[in-house]
Amino acid sequence: MKKVVIIGAGFGGLSAAKKLADDDIQLTIIDKTNHHLFQPLLYQVATAALSPGDIANPIRSVFSEQDNVEVLLGEVTSIDRQKKTVQFNGSSIVFDYLIIATGSRHSYFGKDEWEKFAPGLKTINDALRIREKILLSLEAAEIEKDPEKRQKYLNFVIIGGGPTGLELAGAISEIVNQNIIPDFRNITASMTKVYMVEALPKILSTYPDDLSKRAFEDLKELGVEVLLNQRVVDISKDGVKVGDRFIETSNILWAAGNQVSPLIKTLEIETDKSGRAIVNDDLTIKNYENIFVIGDAAAVKNEEGEYIPAIAPAAMQQGRHVASIINGDRKDKSKRIFKYNDRGMMATIGKAKAVAVIKGLKFSGVFAWLLWSIVHVLFLISFRNRLRVMAEWMWHYLTNSPGIRLIVKEDSSKSTIQQLN
Amino acid sequence: MKKVVIIGAGFGGLSAAKKLADDDIQLTIIDKTNHHLFQPLLYQVATAALSPGDIANPIRSVFSEQDNVEVLLGEVTSIDRQKKTVQFNGSSIVFDYLIIATGSRHSYFGKDEWEKFAPGLKTINDALRIREKILLSLEAAEIEKDPEKRQKYLNFVIIGGGPTGLELAGAISEIVNQNIIPDFRNITASMTKVYMVEALPKILSTYPDDLSKRAFEDLKELGVEVLLNQRVVDISKDGVKVGDRFIETSNILWAAGNQVSPLIKTLEIETDKSGRAIVNDDLTIKNYENIFVIGDAAAVKNEEGEYIPAIAPAAMQQGRHVASIINGDRKDKSKRIFKYNDRGMMATIGKAKAVAVIKGLKFSGVFAWLLWSIVHVLFLISFRNRLRVMAEWMWHYLTNSPGIRLIVKEDSSKSTIQQLN
Repeated sequence: MKKVVIIGAGFGGLSAAKKLADDDIQLTIIDKTNHHLFQPLLYQVATAALSPGDIANPIRSVFSEQDNVEVLLGEVTSIDRQKKTVQFNGSSIVFDYLIIATGSRHSYFGKDEWEKFAPGLKTINDALRIREKILLSLEAAEIEKDPEKRQKYLNFVIIGGGPTGLELAGAISEIVNQNIIPDFRNITASMTKVYMVEALPKILSTYPDDLSKRAFEDLKELGVEVLLNQRVVDISKDGVKVGDRFIETSNILWAAGNQVSPLIKTLEIETDKSGRAIVNDDLTIKNYENIFVIGDAAAVKNEEGEYIPAIAPAAMQQGRHVASIINGDRKDKSKRIFKYNDRGMMATIGKAKAVAVIKGLKFSGVFAWLLWSIVHVLFLISFRNRLRVMAEWMWHYLTNSPGIRLIVKEDSSKSTIQQLN
Repeated sequence: MKKVVIIGAGFGGLSAAKKLADDDIQLTIIDKTNHHLFQPLLYQVATAALSPGDIANPIRSVFSEQDNVEVLLGEVTSIDRQKKTVQFNGSSIVFDYLIIATGSRHSYFGKDEWEKFAPGLKTINDALRIREKILLSLEAAEIEKDPEKRQKYLNFVIIGGGPTGLELAGAISEIVNQNIIPDFRNITASMTKVYMVEALPKILSTYPDDLSKRAFEDLKELGVEVLLNQRVVDISKDGVKVGDRFIETSNILWAAGNQVSPLIKTLEIETDKSGRAIVNDDLTIKNYENIFVIGDAAAVKNEEGEYIPAIAPAAMQQGRHVASIINGDRKDKSKRIFKYNDRGMMATIGKAKAVAVIKGLKFSGVFAWLLWSIVHVLFLISFRNRLRVMAEWMWHYLTNSPGIRLIVKEDSSKSTIQQLN
């Protein structure tokens, strides 16, 4: 029986695993967390609109019926390509085929010390940290009597003008201002200020210009101030320095930069300037027909010679492609070549505000928003999650309900304000 | 307008607040957390059967329509009875009436250093810590090849034979063994061992003997070993010493002992041996007709001269009683006296296993379990929570589904096994 090891159970790894699990294969999935996470909706956990359990699923439950699938929690420390083993938990796991789908994290451009003041949004823990920060800031603002000192808690700065930054900025404006703040007595929505900082001349840099412009207008309508062509100079517990300007804030959210797992370096292969593994056109690494890198960790080009975007549909297609190579469906050499089916991209800004481009056709407004919602619900991993998210969204939409605004980590030895610093 | 300050938004505080909120009163609610928590179902969050959001509600959403209600997050540090002020966040808040409803926490009988190895179950954070511990232990057992080293991760020890301990022991046996472990490949339910440790000669010490016996039998049926007349001698990261016996385990759950908030001491009034405030028969403290202590923080006697149990219905009745004194409904001196309406007690062990005593009538088995379920859903604070919990329970019951088994706090710098120590 072929032994396949998959490192990473994100969109790439899980898609490959789902396709291989029913075959006569011994499958081992290794992940640093015990769950598959539907990342596109993570920003809704961060803004208290969804619960973690709505968008995450333990990996083992996905494969509960398949005895040939083993799931191990932990980190692969190195790979021996010649011996065909991976090092895990102090011992070697042998493989016939290896799929590396370790994804990507944010990059702080060398300033890793910024992370503690400016959390990213890649894991549930990240989302809960952000949620906690936002809710604590509002509570601190509620009890702070001096308006100058209070403003720090009501300023929100999002670093990064890609889809994640956009979705965060929109959600904070909408959810914080329309749903959460009305339950407070001493602060109002008009006191809050949301900023988005983007180093390039436009937000949504990978989208067509007119959609970027539309998104920009939508943000402006929500009261978000977008700072283009601006870089972050410094971040501290007091705020963020953007160009010459210092914005005092306890709410800095980092949605910029991309870096891959350090595991990729141990492969000793060529990488692009972001550190992503350069792969062959069948997603294998140089000289090894049995080792694949997929998803955000790989630098894959389409037929036009352009890099495929680091988005979920791309990772899923690659995962399924590699699985069908492994299970022998693509014996014909020409079929081994991965062909990316560009189904487009979409990003939402808020209720009835979204942009989408599909096969050259552009959409915005309510239609794009509905499309976005439907696509995202359909791609959730399980029926139960789909039900929960749909129920949560409908309830939220109909009642403007508060969602899951829980501050969970109590540290009652510190005052509310101390907890933010 | 009368100014009422309520410290604590648990069952007692919230019941008082809900009754006062519609009156012509300026109400300030102060709590260390931002939410009201339905504690009786907390053990289900700890065993990954419910999400925190299913059983907790932000306090401010309960009162979102009432502009006369202010909610402040933080801790009252002291009370000045004569000046009629409470110290909060560095300033004084004035009151005409004060309701102290600070509840209770577990007591480690002087051994507070045990807490880091043996978390209690009073807050959402507690429940999530326990859930994390249980799930990480199972993951560590899955990858540990040596059966002797592995057993530590598959032993579960619950300290305390009251309703909370019982519910935890039952849920761990059922949920871990029947729902969670089947998704693992290298461990089986028959390898796990659950122990309950109780210092008294019987579990459920406040229940009639035959119900205690029934609960004991139900636990035995689930494979739980109950150690009666046994005290914990020591707790470390390796396990727990009970009498002469050392049980190696990474899963110690503390559900014993009771202590009140240190705030009660600052009142400088007589307390019982548990530190609870001795109150008059109208729940006021000695010499102060405008200061009340209710719920777990108070030592209240019923008409027979016995102490009223520290349970939710008692706190709720006291909260409502005090509110009606404050809003002038009980001007008649005889009506000021609090009369406890003993509606009975119930505890569940697992699916179709529960015990209940109501006005002297005793129930057990399926009927008691259904009664328990209905009562608990009805008393959830909001319609939305009721829907969520009912939906979650029905789904769980019909599909034996895995629930919310998420390990959220990643510390990928540590191995799985390191994270447990």
